[in-house]
Amino acid sequence: MLSSRNVWIFIQAEKKHICHRSSKHFAGLNKSRDSSVITPSPLSSFSLSKSLSGLSAARRGLIHRKMSENGVTSRRSKVLTIDTMNATVKKVEYAVRGPIVQRAVQIEKELNEGAKKPFTEVIKANIGDAHAMGQQPITFFRQVLALCSYPELMNENSFPEDAKGRAHRILQGCGGKSIGAYSASQGIECIRQDVARYIERRDGGVPCDPDNIYLTTGASDGIVTMLKLLVSGEGQSRTGIMISIPQYPLYSAALAELGAVQVNYYLNEEKCWSMDISELQRSLEAARQHCNPRALCVINPGNPTGQVQSRECIEEVIKFAAKENLFLMADEVYQDNVYADGCEFHSFKKVLFEMGPEYSGTVELASFHSTSKCYMGECGFRGGYMEVINMDQEVKAQLTKLVSVRLCPPVPGQALMDLVVNPPQPGEPSYNTFMKERTATLSNLAEKAKLTEQILNTVPGIMCNPVQGAMYSFPQITLPERAIKEAKEKGQAPDMLYCMKLLEETGICLVPGSGFGQRDGTYHFRMTILPPTEKLKILLSKLKEFHQKFTQQYS
Amino acid sequence: MLSSRNVWIFIQAEKKHICHRSSKHFAGLNKSRDSSVITPSPLSSFSLSKSLSGLSAARRGLIHRKMSENGVTSRRSKVLTIDTMNATVKKVEYAVRGPIVQRAVQIEKELNEGAKKPFTEVIKANIGDAHAMGQQPITFFRQVLALCSYPELMNENSFPEDAKGRAHRILQGCGGKSIGAYSASQGIECIRQDVARYIERRDGGVPCDPDNIYLTTGASDGIVTMLKLLVSGEGQSRTGIMISIPQYPLYSAALAELGAVQVNYYLNEEKCWSMDISELQRSLEAARQHCNPRALCVINPGNPTGQVQSRECIEEVIKFAAKENLFLMADEVYQDNVYADGCEFHSFKKVLFEMGPEYSGTVELASFHSTSKCYMGECGFRGGYMEVINMDQEVKAQLTKLVSVRLCPPVPGQALMDLVVNPPQPGEPSYNTFMKERTATLSNLAEKAKLTEQILNTVPGIMCNPVQGAMYSFPQITLPERAIKEAKEKGQAPDMLYCMKLLEETGICLVPGSGFGQRDGTYHFRMTILPPTEKLKILLSKLKEFHQKFTQQYS
Repeated sequence: MLSSRNVWIFIQAEKKHICHRSSKHFAGLNKSRDSSVITPSPLSSFSLSKSLSGLSAARRGLIHRKMSENGVTSRRSKVLTIDTMNATVKKVEYAVRGPIVQRAVQIEKELNEGAKKPFTEVIKANIGDAHAMGQQPITFFRQVLALCSYPELMNENSFPEDAKGRAHRILQGCGGKSIGAYSASQGIECIRQDVARYIERRDGGVPCDPDNIYLTTGASDGIVTMLKLLVSGEGQSRTGIMISIPQYPLYSAALAELGAVQVNYYLNEEKCWSMDISELQRSLEAARQHCNPRALCVINPGNPTGQVQSRECIEEVIKFAAKENLFLMADEVYQDNVYADGCEFHSFKKVLFEMGPEYSGTVELASFHSTSKCYMGECGFRGGYMEVINMDQEVKAQLTKLVSVRLCPPVPGQALMDLVVNPPQPGEPSYNTFMKERTATLSNLAEKAKLTEQILNTVPGIMCNPVQGAMYSFPQITLPERAIKEAKEKGQAPDMLYCMKLLEETGICLVPGSGFGQRDGTYHFRMTILPPTEKLKILLSKLKEFHQKFTQQYS
Repeated sequence: MLSSRNVWIFIQAEKKHICHRSSKHFAGLNKSRDSSVITPSPLSSFSLSKSLSGLSAARRGLIHRKMSENGVTSRRSKVLTIDTMNATVKKVEYAVRGPIVQRAVQIEKELNEGAKKPFTEVIKANIGDAHAMGQQPITFFRQVLALCSYPELMNENSFPEDAKGRAHRILQGCGGKSIGAYSASQGIECIRQDVARYIERRDGGVPCDPDNIYLTTGASDGIVTMLKLLVSGEGQSRTGIMISIPQYPLYSAALAELGAVQVNYYLNEEKCWSMDISELQRSLEAARQHCNPRALCVINPGNPTGQVQSRECIEEVIKFAAKENLFLMADEVYQDNVYADGCEFHSFKKVLFEMGPEYSGTVELASFHSTSKCYMGECGFRGGYMEVINMDQEVKAQLTKLVSVRLCPPVPGQALMDLVVNPPQPGEPSYNTFMKERTATLSNLAEKAKLTEQILNTVPGIMCNPVQGAMYSFPQITLPERAIKEAKEKGQAPDMLYCMKLLEETGICLVPGSGFGQRDGTYHFRMTILPPTEKLKILLSKLKEFHQKFTQQYS
């Protein structure tokens, strides 16, 4: 045990580092204006907390207090350090905005500052951010949003009547007829009604109760909220959540933060990333040895894998969930993004209800949708909804209470969600333009999905499943043994080494497969199909060239 | 221990309840369309989970699986029940949208359906929702938002040039020049720069680094994120967070959810809800017996109490935090809402820097602002920012990573935050209108703050401190012993009984003091000053009448 006296000596010994380090450390804050500020060296606080980390928190607190009493307040260790912060937060990883993307941003800055590189721009194919890649917003949606923001525009002749009608209806649902008012925490009532009617149309008449709809801050918010409800128990009884591998890293990040057990099931790459019930069973049995698996998450159409699950597969998954008493979570944010011939989107809810009351009356399901994907790609608005089916009424009351703490989802995002579920209808003035824009975007995505698959499969050492849906390809790449060895020596995932080199040499920003999970010994990357066609062709051609060069270099 | 055989018998015994209960229970879902669906009775699942709740989760899982194998899948207990859900979520309470507000919404529906009541409308004075109470948005802000939503409006002559300039600048900062693109997770860079310049102006030149600014989804998001970083340890070492009593219940709700220890310090009602250092000391010493207090939260101007802390008080609080090694969290969302003569808003950051390098170089501070309050009241946009000072660089990297999982705060809210920190300047075309609107709103609030205090203090048994700032009064009410007894018999807080009766008899919706915390044996309510002046007068007059009647009735 360290006595407070020892700590004091320790600090004295460290003090000599303080002065010449501090100005650098807080360079951002102090800049030229207040260079007299003297701050503790990060090294000194780090070392101190390291040296104290064997002590209990209360004991450390005592030591800090003793330090204060000794008059060293200004040189005390920070309250919040990497050692004393929330440990579960440290475990969180999110590759889609991870180190490779940070480096891409840095390279962009270097290019702007005139740095010479073997390329003139960074092409970001790391994130499903359609507008950033040049996709145009749907005119009707933006007209209604402008009208909602500034209702004085209702008097303008330049706005079509159906846009005014939608804006009027949304504003009627808002407190004080302003989108600046809080909404009900579950979302604006008339919008939840529109969502319910949309789901009924989509699912061929299966009934939907607006009371089961919760508007959310993007789909992520709904997913995290549902996971939060499900997590309980300790040790062997701790909640396990089954997620696909590869997965969208929101899931692993949320599970890490909530301290739940991540239970992996592998998608079948050989069968176009489909789900195998035998693999679900294996995964579940294994998990039951050490935790309490309670929910099964499915992303369909798939992210990062781009597959579209068949109706048969969904039915089997539902049967499996029913048999094993698992709560189903269906992430269906790409429901309009289906490109491949013979593929069709089937919502989990529709299949569930077609399976009859034995299932539709019992299986608990939460499904998620968003304004961020499909043909609209309005990520910045953070709109979304979730529908809960067969949820226990007491739990639902708890859910409603929980979302009320954050007051309400952003109202502009709610308005946008309303337009997505209630777009212009035949006969309305905006219908033709809307359909033209929608079709153009979806056809263009379909074309790029095919293009991506085709070109990638011409490269020896790259193997790409059909991009049946969503916005991504997730090809397997063969890496030379020497590259794998080098990466391991660097403590890096081999596909991270590959993607980092790709970025530095070509300006192309992809996310390594290791950020999504993959079978041991296999390597992948996720690439969006979102860049404009001409840019996508350049990207694919550069990628092809890079892959060949990389393979040669390490062979 | 229950064997699976016993459970099976138990279920058989319960089955007779199933059929006639199910249709009622799922009435919402099934409505008239699919009345054939048979669902388990909520009573049966509840009883089952109750009876199983003594068993381990793994054992319960086993029983459910046995049940499935026996072919009772369709009658199995739910996966997610009140007994098996996240226990910390159950502890969360949020009075501002609690039972009294739910009842108010119900009464509104009853009135709409023609029910006869002693009043014709519900007056909601429960939540700081300015637009819902008729406050008009700032024209300039909404013009810019319309331009950002639908940039085709840039060609319209009816929009002023400064609005176009702001919209252009914001759109330049967006991916693909669209507010539909994701922003950087920390927020759009040029907006963070504008925030930094605003803080420098506000604080008389104290430097602000845009890298210390994080744009957020309302202030709530920033506060919860900071608390999340701070929580660690178990048992005696568990993080304690000091919050004022009365408090804004976001804090208690977030602490419950995070499993942190809520450490109460009482504001001094006799001294106009000021902070006493001796009380902080008492609270801290007591807390150190059972947890590890690491942060001190201050709301200034105060919610629900409406006080404005003096510069001296803030300086003492900072010294206390420095001495006791506490991380400071300053909730400053009402920074423009200061009404009382002699009161002035002092930001914690400004005072901290005026105290010299001994403090400014060491005390860790996070401060929060929002688009929801002040003169703009744009709650629905969920805009906000936080500034972190002296945060450990490694922790900051973790913070940046953590916020990246949720991708980005809503971009329309970010745009609005930009306008708040960068409003029209003298000489710009919109300046005069902007200033006129801003001043009118703030003067009106000041008038209503005074009116509320004056009228409330004319009622015997109501004692109201000056509403120096923010948007609330939090008067103390004297309740007759008989009313207190009746409430206790009902298991209700006495001020809840009072507020519920007030709602039923007059249509006025307030929040009981028990939802914010108060000294034992004292009773309060929180009332916003937001209703339009004429309606506020009616409200206060009805309240006065009710209080007198209530007092008589129970005396």
